[in-house]
Amino acid sequence: MALYTQPMLPEGSMKDRVIVVTGGGTGLGRSMTKYFLQLGAHCVITSRKLEVLQETAQELEKETGGKVLAVACDVRDYESVENMLKQAVEHFGKVDGLVNNAAGNFISPTERLSHRAFDTIVDIVLRGSYYCTLAFGKYWIKEQIPATVLNIVTTYAWTGSAYVVPSACAKAGVLAMTRSLAVEWAKYKIRMNAIAPGPFPTEGAWSRLFPPALAETELGQKLKPENKIPVGRVGEHQELANLAAYLMSDFSAYINGEVVTIDGGEWLKGAGEFNMLDAVPQQMWDMLEQMVKAKKGNS
Amino acid sequence: MALYTQPMLPEGSMKDRVIVVTGGGTGLGRSMTKYFLQLGAHCVITSRKLEVLQETAQELEKETGGKVLAVACDVRDYESVENMLKQAVEHFGKVDGLVNNAAGNFISPTERLSHRAFDTIVDIVLRGSYYCTLAFGKYWIKEQIPATVLNIVTTYAWTGSAYVVPSACAKAGVLAMTRSLAVEWAKYKIRMNAIAPGPFPTEGAWSRLFPPALAETELGQKLKPENKIPVGRVGEHQELANLAAYLMSDFSAYINGEVVTIDGGEWLKGAGEFNMLDAVPQQMWDMLEQMVKAKKGNS
Amino acid sequence: MALYTQPMLPEGSMKDRVIVVTGGGTGLGRSMTKYFLQLGAHCVITSRKLEVLQETAQELEKETGGKVLAVACDVRDYESVENMLKQAVEHFGKVDGLVNNAAGNFISPTERLSHRAFDTIVDIVLRGSYYCTLAFGKYWIKEQIPATVLNIVTTYAWTGSAYVVPSACAKAGVLAMTRSLAVEWAKYKIRMNAIAPGPFPTEGAWSRLFPPALAETELGQKLKPENKIPVGRVGEHQELANLAAYLMSDFSAYINGEVVTIDGGEWLKGAGEFNMLDAVPQQMWDMLEQMVKAKKGNS
Amino acid sequence: MALYTQPMLPEGSMKDRVIVVTGGGTGLGRSMTKYFLQLGAHCVITSRKLEVLQETAQELEKETGGKVLAVACDVRDYESVENMLKQAVEHFGKVDGLVNNAAGNFISPTERLSHRAFDTIVDIVLRGSYYCTLAFGKYWIKEQIPATVLNIVTTYAWTGSAYVVPSACAKAGVLAMTRSLAVEWAKYKIRMNAIAPGPFPTEGAWSRLFPPALAETELGQKLKPENKIPVGRVGEHQELANLAAYLMSDFSAYINGEVVTIDGGEWLKGAGEFNMLDAVPQQMWDMLEQMVKAKKGNS
Repeated sequence: MALYTQPMLPEGSMKDRVIVVTGGGTGLGRSMTKYFLQLGAHCVITSRKLEVLQETAQELEKETGGKVLAVACDVRDYESVENMLKQAVEHFGKVDGLVNNAAGNFISPTERLSHRAFDTIVDIVLRGSYYCTLAFGKYWIKEQIPATVLNIVTTYAWTGSAYVVPSACAKAGVLAMTRSLAVEWAKYKIRMNAIAPGPFPTEGAWSRLFPPALAETELGQKLKPENKIPVGRVGEHQELANLAAYLMSDFSAYINGEVVTIDGGEWLKGAGEFNMLDAVPQQMWDMLEQMVKAKKGNS
Repeated sequence: MALYTQPMLPEGSMKDRVIVVTGGGTGLGRSMTKYFLQLGAHCVITSRKLEVLQETAQELEKETGGKVLAVACDVRDYESVENMLKQAVEHFGKVDGLVNNAAGNFISPTERLSHRAFDTIVDIVLRGSYYCTLAFGKYWIKEQIPATVLNIVTTYAWTGSAYVVPSACAKAGVLAMTRSLAVEWAKYKIRMNAIAPGPFPTEGAWSRLFPPALAETELGQKLKPENKIPVGRVGEHQELANLAAYLMSDFSAYINGEVVTIDGGEWLKGAGEFNMLDAVPQQMWDMLEQMVKAKKGNS
Repeated sequence: MALYTQPMLPEGSMKDRVIVVTGGGTGLGRSMTKYFLQLGAHCVITSRKLEVLQETAQELEKETGGKVLAVACDVRDYESVENMLKQAVEHFGKVDGLVNNAAGNFISPTERLSHRAFDTIVDIVLRGSYYCTLAFGKYWIKEQIPATVLNIVTTYAWTGSAYVVPSACAKAGVLAMTRSLAVEWAKYKIRMNAIAPGPFPTEGAWSRLFPPALAETELGQKLKPENKIPVGRVGEHQELANLAAYLMSDFSAYINGEVVTIDGGEWLKGAGEFNMLDAVPQQMWDMLEQMVKAKKGNS
Repeated sequence: MALYTQPMLPEGSMKDRVIVVTGGGTGLGRSMTKYFLQLGAHCVITSRKLEVLQETAQELEKETGGKVLAVACDVRDYESVENMLKQAVEHFGKVDGLVNNAAGNFISPTERLSHRAFDTIVDIVLRGSYYCTLAFGKYWIKEQIPATVLNIVTTYAWTGSAYVVPSACAKAGVLAMTRSLAVEWAKYKIRMNAIAPGPFPTEGAWSRLFPPALAETELGQKLKPENKIPVGRVGEHQELANLAAYLMSDFSAYINGEVVTIDGGEWLKGAGEFNMLDAVPQQMWDMLEQMVKAKKGNS
């Protein structure tokens, strides 16, 4: 079995850590939480849907033997965030880790979005992230608790991207927060990093972004992410979980303010000016080579 | 007189353009507006303070002979933005340029900020910028008007910065919007760029950021921006206005999605790992050189 | 006529400046030189081919009424560079500007390159640029002459690019030199910036990169740069010349260590994760919108 | 004992891998090699000093029980590189990993460098890295061996830095190579990443950069790297080794073309425009806060 589908860190690497994962009930949030639990952490998972959370919490406790608290929280509401933190601290005695993972996205031409739709995404992603970070930071600073924050962003946080503009604005803001507070709060022993994942398919999420109506067309086939990724495949949840656990654990104590991209090289493939020449077949390169040589012979 | 304090573009470079400058009543917004007017544009200046705007509008008309409309607008309120656009179009027949310049900032340790203070800055800077851009974009696309957008950001949009974290988050979001819509809306002949200015002192703004209580201390002297800037001075408004006019005019038609930094090299000076060696005097370099030579002689 | 095909700066903006343009005999180097002359500068053009240079020099003098010195120089040979500088100073009394524009490139799968081919490009582009900059810098510092350097790089200086790897390595090095010396030599009143141009076709250059054998195939059509550029066209030489003159003149005195991209948005279009959705037609967006609405109605 | 001083990956994570580490005889190269051996890899260490290498090889074999081959190699000489590869393959049957770690540096005002000194650094760092990568890549592609490359760069590869300009140029080139070939050679199952370490003191290296004559002065104390690093300490070799092993192993199979910074936040601290306000004491923030409140009360 490929190494990257295996857990990476030593047992107990997150022993007695208490980590809050927003959006921890599903998808990548769930996968990261599961691995944190396997490494000895206690976890708090939050989202607006308590029922989903509670089901996930039960499953995760069963799968890992760890302890999971499910707390309903709307990250766009500061009181709700404060309340969530309070519950987490009451339940586990402290919190010393936060993964800002809750997100929302619309794929749409920007001019078709209402300003309210734009707000919705920015509020979940950016406001939600700074609300959580601010509330937790105040608590850590007051209680003098060393802590770690991990923010899940995207590669278009720095490149921008059409058709997901509210998300681009918000994720860029989260990245700037990462780089800012990594410096400012280091004196309080708070460390902050980010991950920019490429396509890691999750049940539901991908089909919401690429509904069958699109995916099944010829165009949809052409747009398949696999085709844009140098390493030729989408990501496995465990490899993201490994990276997340590394960045949340003390193994990465000297990494601070960094965003680690894990996308198989996707964004670079698009960005490099002549990368589209991948489409040129070997025979044509042979031919071009011959021509250059012939020309040199003449000159 | 230094060339950079002189106007740069040919007369009439913005003839018949109609440019809205948010935050256009004071500071750099006023300086850019003035130069656009001198180049033949009609301008709309907006902010929440109608009185200040109207005074500025009168002054600018007198100084330049151009036409200025003052419209009160709270960029955090979409209806207010739509209304502002409507007034501008009614008054001048069209709008084909937008400078997202309105901003707010607090200099403060982040943990001392309330979530509301954080929101205030993000709402003015990021929400305000995407509200304006969205409303104007919808109008331009519907009316098939080619247009240009210029967003005023900061160097900490990509480096992050302590003590101005809400502004860092928001400006980073605006930069991502720039890069996203430059690509997405190019098909509608909408072009979008940004400027990241270093310190360009404006009456009031700087003293709000560095109140005399701080500026007059030894520490305040040490923190003076001049000391951090390779070219050894703060910026002149005309040089920013020249760059802004260039990016808003058709002279820059092939620059798209770009952020141009105009900070005398400030951010690079901080960023480079060994730049602090500027403090080493020439005699010490002489001495070090001798030592290296001596060592080579021995080995 | 489009504004961007017109000269931009006021007459005399480079009066009495003496600018050396490496690779100034052809292509963009020639276009920049011509415009500097029109703005009042004296120019030195260099390359290895004296005959071509002399012809260009004569043409340019005739076209502009300016003064041009042609000096054969192999920028990979430090003595040749020193000699070129000496001739320039003897001829014009001083030099106070340098455009590192000489370049070479192979488009080829990297594994097909010999190490000597790799060296050839790196030596012309990187070694040539630092040889010129070092020799000129020593002269400027010794003679206390304020000066400006402009380096012509590429967008793949920071994104990297397949199939032009020696050029990518070298241009990245030149960009780092720009950012380094902009800070270090500011105290000597030496200012340094860079331009990253997208496709600006020049006679010869483009057909060397895309030989007819490739260009005329279906693949060649598909790879045409126009198709990758948001603004839908390649660049005009005058718009590059305008930007170059701006950055070489004192109008940009507060821009230092900066690289300005002028590529119509090309690199961003490739880089943004969802930009490929430009291929989705409006009807499909309509359909997707209906589906989302229907889903919302149900949930 | 702090987790970050402990080995991170599961036993056998690099079993049967054969890794060449240039500059592997001393410093960080030695530390990475040691950890690769502990994880089951066979290693080849190279530099120009065979005696040092052989001593290190013996020590490492004794410390880890692994197998180490010492090969003298001047990475600036392509034949020497080819010969080194040949020896490695003959000895271990194959090679499937390369760490471009060999480096050189001068700390000096650039204008004091001869062009030969400049060449020396660029040749070791950039030419050496592309010679090794080219020779190994040709071998891997021909033999169809999946492989991994890790390049050791610096944060000034993208920020530039005064006083280390040859190194900045060269490291930037290596970073561009990383991003280019990560895309181009992914189809051959060659993966390539980079690490940008902050200060990781090594015996000798640091004292060469900061000779006692400088280190012991008041200025030297002020320039101590610890003072510039948010997390308040220099790095431990094991934490770099952990990151290097992660990036060389299959655990990071979906990370490609990435540079991971491990510097405690050093470069960001310098880069952010208002980070120098760290020098403002809490009492002054209290005072400023009071003033702002008072002002609000008045307006």
